[in-house]
Amino acid sequence: MTFQQKLDAIVDKNNSFLCIGPDPDWNKLPQVVKGKKYPQFVFNKAIIDATHDLVCAYKPNSAFYEYLGSDGIEQLKLTCDYIRKTYPEIPIIIDAKRGDISSTNEGYVAYAFDYLQADAITLHPYLGREAVQPFLDRADKGCIILCRTSNPGAGEFQDLLVEGDPLYLYLAKKVSKKWNTNNNCLLVVGATYPKELAAIRGVVGNMTLLIPGVGAQGGDVQQSVQAGVNSKGTGIIISTSRSILFASTGADFAQKARNEAEKLKNEINTYRERSI
Amino acid sequence: MTFQQKLDAIVDKNNSFLCIGPDPDWNKLPQVVKGKKYPQFVFNKAIIDATHDLVCAYKPNSAFYEYLGSDGIEQLKLTCDYIRKTYPEIPIIIDAKRGDISSTNEGYVAYAFDYLQADAITLHPYLGREAVQPFLDRADKGCIILCRTSNPGAGEFQDLLVEGDPLYLYLAKKVSKKWNTNNNCLLVVGATYPKELAAIRGVVGNMTLLIPGVGAQGGDVQQSVQAGVNSKGTGIIISTSRSILFASTGADFAQKARNEAEKLKNEINTYRERSI
Repeated sequence: MTFQQKLDAIVDKNNSFLCIGPDPDWNKLPQVVKGKKYPQFVFNKAIIDATHDLVCAYKPNSAFYEYLGSDGIEQLKLTCDYIRKTYPEIPIIIDAKRGDISSTNEGYVAYAFDYLQADAITLHPYLGREAVQPFLDRADKGCIILCRTSNPGAGEFQDLLVEGDPLYLYLAKKVSKKWNTNNNCLLVVGATYPKELAAIRGVVGNMTLLIPGVGAQGGDVQQSVQAGVNSKGTGIIISTSRSILFASTGADFAQKARNEAEKLKNEINTYRERSI
Repeated sequence: MTFQQKLDAIVDKNNSFLCIGPDPDWNKLPQVVKGKKYPQFVFNKAIIDATHDLVCAYKPNSAFYEYLGSDGIEQLKLTCDYIRKTYPEIPIIIDAKRGDISSTNEGYVAYAFDYLQADAITLHPYLGREAVQPFLDRADKGCIILCRTSNPGAGEFQDLLVEGDPLYLYLAKKVSKKWNTNNNCLLVVGATYPKELAAIRGVVGNMTLLIPGVGAQGGDVQQSVQAGVNSKGTGIIISTSRSILFASTGADFAQKARNEAEKLKNEINTYRERSI
């Protein structure tokens, strides 16, 4: 089963385009988990158990584990193992934003797809397709290429005009028309840029777009959904972390996270239905 | 002491512009280390002990550790700790090619500079300066931005014309003129592209360039040195891994690595002296 097939199946089953990023920032963790042996994993497990029927994917960001070194990587592995064993129908996206030259990328391929056994990974495009090829070759895995990122300064290079298009749009065309021979490419497009999102949707056909930036970063849900959906009214993964994970810092954190997740899931579906 | 000061001091002391990447690819490790508890670290330690008076830096690439998961990260940490304690005058460059949005980059900053206590890190530019700022803010650390990479397909985006310049040159100007307010930026330029290297040197003043790609990747030492040096006949870090690390797969691997390192160090100096 490919990443896209797995994603399509869970979107149907859970009726959801919501992706949660289990990004257990130590400074924001509830007191109740801080004394545990694996506090990040204990936190994640509670969040996952409370939201598994509301999401289409989990997207842990490697940075929130790496800052703890080997102990953090162990907790990321525990998190991925737990999702895979307990909710095997939910795809895992490793948000690692990797990108090295091709021979070295084999190490990152092994990290993401063999060690963590994730279903997809986010990737930097700057080194070109030839460098990314070891990821693209894993046809059953999703390769999610950074296109128009959600940060305020994203435009510094991404908006530069090349051959008449802003770079992000040139890249979107390249990826969808040249890189995607295994049908396993997706693009990252920030919810904070709905106009650019619409332009990208206009050139990539029905390709799935990973859309971070709603919630704490301020991206608008309605605009993102309406600009992002494809001709079938699908093809979006709306991803958020902080606004759900840290809805409460009390012992009720998991229940409060569920409430926030349910609200956002329903909001996405409302706008999606109006877009079709 | 800043990264650049530490680098300048060891360049003087060891009379060397050679950087070795301890990238302990499991498939290439000598049999003699494979049975050890921490084979990658044992291998690195032997290489480092045999070459410490010949180099200006060590540059471990995170990918060669991550593929082993938490156990690999532990060996990367052991390697960095060993260098720092035994040869504190030698700078450590983490070749991690990271690049996320700014709040998330704080996790990577902590990984590279606080957990591993490295002196510098390699970074992707695609998200712009605003995203990279948490790295740039660590004024004592080196921020080594990917500019013209050594891989065969590097030109796909890096050669695109923007405002009259190829993107790599536009980026080199941006970094040297706008990003470098803390004087802690460097650029990565592949030895496999001496023409582009000369063009970059032409616009960045005396900024130090990290030049990978000699050895296994086929970059020419003479051309790289002559195109890369700045007006003081310095400002280059010539980095190589495989051709030194795996010069022998026998029990004499460290001695053979030393021989190769010495040869390359001297070759670099020969061409450097002719360039001044």
